[in-house]
Amino acid sequence: RLLFETHLDQIIHNLKEPSARIVQAMTYSLKAGGKRLRPILCIAACQAVHGPTENCLNAACAIEMIHTYSLIHDDLPALDNDSLRRGKPTCHTAFDESTGILAGDGLLTLAFELLASRKDQFYFNADRQLRVIYKIATACGYQGMIEGQMRDLASEKKPLTISELETMHSLKTGALIEASVFTGAVLGNGTPEQINALSDYAQHIGIAFQVVDDILNVTGDPEIMGKAVGSDEKLCKATYPSIVGIEKSHHIAKQRIQQAIDALGQFDNDADPLREIALYILHRNK
Amino acid sequence: RLLFETHLDQIIHNLKEPSARIVQAMTYSLKAGGKRLRPILCIAACQAVHGPTENCLNAACAIEMIHTYSLIHDDLPALDNDSLRRGKPTCHTAFDESTGILAGDGLLTLAFELLASRKDQFYFNADRQLRVIYKIATACGYQGMIEGQMRDLASEKKPLTISELETMHSLKTGALIEASVFTGAVLGNGTPEQINALSDYAQHIGIAFQVVDDILNVTGDPEIMGKAVGSDEKLCKATYPSIVGIEKSHHIAKQRIQQAIDALGQFDNDADPLREIALYILHRNK
Repeated sequence: RLLFETHLDQIIHNLKEPSARIVQAMTYSLKAGGKRLRPILCIAACQAVHGPTENCLNAACAIEMIHTYSLIHDDLPALDNDSLRRGKPTCHTAFDESTGILAGDGLLTLAFELLASRKDQFYFNADRQLRVIYKIATACGYQGMIEGQMRDLASEKKPLTISELETMHSLKTGALIEASVFTGAVLGNGTPEQINALSDYAQHIGIAFQVVDDILNVTGDPEIMGKAVGSDEKLCKATYPSIVGIEKSHHIAKQRIQQAIDALGQFDNDADPLREIALYILHRNK
Repeated sequence: RLLFETHLDQIIHNLKEPSARIVQAMTYSLKAGGKRLRPILCIAACQAVHGPTENCLNAACAIEMIHTYSLIHDDLPALDNDSLRRGKPTCHTAFDESTGILAGDGLLTLAFELLASRKDQFYFNADRQLRVIYKIATACGYQGMIEGQMRDLASEKKPLTISELETMHSLKTGALIEASVFTGAVLGNGTPEQINALSDYAQHIGIAFQVVDDILNVTGDPEIMGKAVGSDEKLCKATYPSIVGIEKSHHIAKQRIQQAIDALGQFDNDADPLREIALYILHRNK
């Protein structure tokens, strides 16, 4: 994580025109904290296949930028209309709405610039970089994250079944989580078998992550989480607890984490960070 | 152009989940017409270096998607707040604001998916594709198109000098026009000398294009153009005519087009489409 934060700081430091309002808005949201789950997964997947960490640092930053862009746009007045995130004013609140829209656009575009970059890179393999770009673009596109967001917005009007809920989350958050693990594995020169196993791992933790998120929205401590709890219930949003209850939700999360850890059977101790992340997802309180 | 429209139709036809609202919004804006200047430039640049057209068709469609995304976001209530474009309701008007934001995001992301694609492609060269992705991402990012849009928004409050105006336009529209020509030249396997000459060409036509745009906003026929004229004056926007007058603006455009054609000196008749585009830019009435 320290490695990642240092590299991200360096990328931010090297941005041209740091005083431009658009760069300030992009940096503001990138530096607003967060669990950094996706870049950490990317780096841990690279380590699990014995790849050198340097191979995937740029990509890890790019993935965090895409995640940040998605949060900025989700928070906009026309979407979730949130003025606080992680206890701080959201981008469009701290700046203004047009800057929020454009800062999101800027982060998404910068991510692809980084992914295609061959400068400042310890490593350069056009073929693998291209595979990663394709995977990430698909994951966050109209068949992935964006469609998930569309379904999430539509679900405020019409309740979802558990299977529709699972599809919505696998699109909205699962696809990018899976792409993060894929990216680390491909840039770490993983074999096709390793990449497949890691993809299974990622799908299980993706679902568990969302189940725990829903549970925390009911039972979490607002001070630790830096955001209000109970908001899903207020919006009548479909969640795991609202459909199957808290106890069964816990059970689903636990089961998925076990399946994720089982999927790592072929990996040695270098996959321990991935195992720890799985357990963290289950036991986190924010 | 026919080649491009056919290929774009095919890509749209192959989109998954065509009935999804997000796909409908993306398609609506892509099919709303327009001059198709950028993809045509891309294909013409590919021909000028004797490259096979098939090499750049996917990329030409990707570039039109990026252009379309930028129009959708520019038209949003928080930015230019336009309800009509090319005589039709803008995306957020035909659908709704959240769909407009997400359709723009979807087109930008789909563009990178296409650029990184290796399927359905007559041609695949990871190294050249990566160079193109990097160039396009830079052109439409925080140092290019997005910064141009930020400056355009800021200019409504504070008048620009002619050199500030030129910088704003070279960021907002020039960078993507140049990237379109670059893309065609690189995917057509152009030499570095050819790519340099074409980049000069693109810079000149980029400026001429904007000067003519500004002139048409004063003198154009609203029926032919499919939009109101005089809107820049109403918004007190800095334009070439408002700063140097109509006559001098004409002169600048003519001079730039001559320089663009001169930059093509080393090219044979296969560059005639590029020469024709330059003349079209000068004499267009919409």
